[in-house]
Amino acid sequence: MSGYFITLEGIEGVGKTTNLNYVREYLERRGHEVVVTREPGGTPLGEQLRELLLTPRTEPVSDMAELLMMFAARAQHLFAVIEPALARGAWVLCDRFTDATFAYQGGGRQLASEPVALLEQLVQRQRRPDLTLLLDLPVEIGLARAHSRGTPDRFETERVEFFQRVRDAYLARAAQEPGRIRVIDAEPPLAQVQQQIDLALSGLEWS
Amino acid sequence: MSGYFITLEGIEGVGKTTNLNYVREYLERRGHEVVVTREPGGTPLGEQLRELLLTPRTEPVSDMAELLMMFAARAQHLFAVIEPALARGAWVLCDRFTDATFAYQGGGRQLASEPVALLEQLVQRQRRPDLTLLLDLPVEIGLARAHSRGTPDRFETERVEFFQRVRDAYLARAAQEPGRIRVIDAEPPLAQVQQQIDLALSGLEWS
Repeated sequence: MSGYFITLEGIEGVGKTTNLNYVREYLERRGHEVVVTREPGGTPLGEQLRELLLTPRTEPVSDMAELLMMFAARAQHLFAVIEPALARGAWVLCDRFTDATFAYQGGGRQLASEPVALLEQLVQRQRRPDLTLLLDLPVEIGLARAHSRGTPDRFETERVEFFQRVRDAYLARAAQEPGRIRVIDAEPPLAQVQQQIDLALSGLEWS
Repeated sequence: MSGYFITLEGIEGVGKTTNLNYVREYLERRGHEVVVTREPGGTPLGEQLRELLLTPRTEPVSDMAELLMMFAARAQHLFAVIEPALARGAWVLCDRFTDATFAYQGGGRQLASEPVALLEQLVQRQRRPDLTLLLDLPVEIGLARAHSRGTPDRFETERVEFFQRVRDAYLARAAQEPGRIRVIDAEPPLAQVQQQIDLALSGLEWS
């Protein structure tokens, strides 16, 4: 039997790393093999593309080039990691996936969503996450948490309005696909955040 | 007035570099500003993508990832070099362009041509070369010339049958678009090759 494909999404500082580990432990306690991975990246080639994408550079990068690099990393990730893991029955837990592309390139960069949807279809065919946990926070709180971590990357140096558009795009997608995307309020103390995550995961286990 | 966009195509060893310089001098003698560039590459980001694409690696690379990286480099190249040059009236002379993608990824890798055509439309919109010089040689002769140059890259380590499919795909495209793609027989001595190039260029200048 094929495993489940779960993605975690959200802007900088919402607590994706902490909650990714929480989800992993939750699933492993229930006896599942869990493959934890991330985008952009997840393969040697993908990590090199991630490096090209995230390194601050003086050269202005075209939105289309950025979008295609994201999907190149994704194609390699699906080919080398995600599809083989799901096929052998492992659960795949991925830190960001295509919802992030809709949110960052579509929302943040204000690129039309049609090219993103077209590339999603070309690269993923029928593959979509079975469950997406969208960790949601007001932008100012997320950025304050992220900035306390050190040197910002090329995306983190964007302005507050950029992340506001990213958050809005995430929430708009969640409204369109409430069955797949669960919005998790990441503002309260961690125990309350994780109660919401438990609820979302318990729904999936019995489906 | 917008400049002309000329591309040179062909498999390894057909003499693209020599003839690129020949075309550049031909055009400069006629008073045109000529921008010489190449794919994949042509921009700092594009050259980094070229490096990722051409470096031999142990990791198997998915055909789709390779295709998307090619078009990412192309999107940046159009954005930063080709479109600005044409807009100011310069002629652009490019060592390989999308015909190479149809030939190498479509023909060589036997990827369906639909994704290539779809990405061409997405990335280039209406932009196509005004003239393409396809330098053509039997595969064995081209490879023998290329191998005398030193260490092969990730494409050059492919087998003869791969390059045979690349050559066939190039010739098939030329047959479909005889007005744009001129097949130059690259086997005779250089002076005869360049007579054919003169003829193709003189047609363009008076068009």
